[in-house]
Amino acid sequence: MGGIMDLHSWQNFIREIDKLKSVERRTLTFHERRHENSAEHSWHLAMAVLAYHSAFPKQNFDLLKALKMALLHDVVEIDAGDTFIYSDLSRKAELETAAAHRIFGLLPEGKAEMLALWEEFEEKKSQEARLVSALDRFLPIYSNCLNGGHSWKQHGVKYSQVIERNKDPISSVSAELWSFTESLLNEAVARGDLSK
Amino acid sequence: MGGIMDLHSWQNFIREIDKLKSVERRTLTFHERRHENSAEHSWHLAMAVLAYHSAFPKQNFDLLKALKMALLHDVVEIDAGDTFIYSDLSRKAELETAAAHRIFGLLPEGKAEMLALWEEFEEKKSQEARLVSALDRFLPIYSNCLNGGHSWKQHGVKYSQVIERNKDPISSVSAELWSFTESLLNEAVARGDLSK
Repeated sequence: MGGIMDLHSWQNFIREIDKLKSVERRTLTFHERRHENSAEHSWHLAMAVLAYHSAFPKQNFDLLKALKMALLHDVVEIDAGDTFIYSDLSRKAELETAAAHRIFGLLPEGKAEMLALWEEFEEKKSQEARLVSALDRFLPIYSNCLNGGHSWKQHGVKYSQVIERNKDPISSVSAELWSFTESLLNEAVARGDLSK
Repeated sequence: MGGIMDLHSWQNFIREIDKLKSVERRTLTFHERRHENSAEHSWHLAMAVLAYHSAFPKQNFDLLKALKMALLHDVVEIDAGDTFIYSDLSRKAELETAAAHRIFGLLPEGKAEMLALWEEFEEKKSQEARLVSALDRFLPIYSNCLNGGHSWKQHGVKYSQVIERNKDPISSVSAELWSFTESLLNEAVARGDLSK
């Protein structure tokens, strides 16, 4: 094991990132009528990645890298807040980059790798980044389909916007996942949970 | 990518495990006066493992395996509930084993590996299991030290019990982490947050 200084930075990092439990997303949890937070969402996304790796063993991706990305992808929201994908994103990049440097910087030994993983995710540079991003898009759609379209209705999001924002990120990773997503969306429209 | 049946089992699994967001632990989050749930705790534990791997590169363990264990370790609580480590544990093993078979069984392609990882964690068979378990013990202690001993006071837990239940699991993995934990506990006693 390393020295006391490493332990000091490790526990500071652990303490700081706990704040992600207080960042509220627009999305509800699947089974309760409450907004989920970004920490439990990050767990759910990592589990979705892990299960995807089991269910589709022929999809060739680096599971360890994808899990790290899923775990880290929203940590910047501690400073920058959750950004709704249907809202104005002009200051998002600037705020999030500063947050990544501050928060990952609390762990000097891990900063470079965490920063690189987060940037790779943001820029969708690799297969792992695109996969994690596709599942990150799928989960809130699935949540809305299970809970009557809560965040779509609350924020006036229409069918065409859901398609426009999510089709490429999801279909470029898996035509079947997009086909499944489309069928969920059509059912939501038929039920009146999403307006055309 | 696999077939529609794989997608079907994948989305059933994703939907089911969302329920872990509704399992309340005795422990508070570090930064809010509310109980944390087992999903956000599992994210926090996985991040603690990831950061530990960065901070102590000489500790030789399989990071991917340890991350999987951290993500999966509490999923059984969906059926079995959260078990306080200071309470009677007589029916715990039986309930949790049934839960592991039911929940991991929703993902036929992943069941065998997930079940094996969970059992390895429960039985502390490997270095990864012992590491994840040590950090799993550390986090609620750290939470109590940061929030005035909330769950210790609420459940009448004494200093000797904290030492008895946690010393071996933590010190066998890292003498330094146990030394740090002991200093936190002594400070908690001095502040009146933990009674001797």
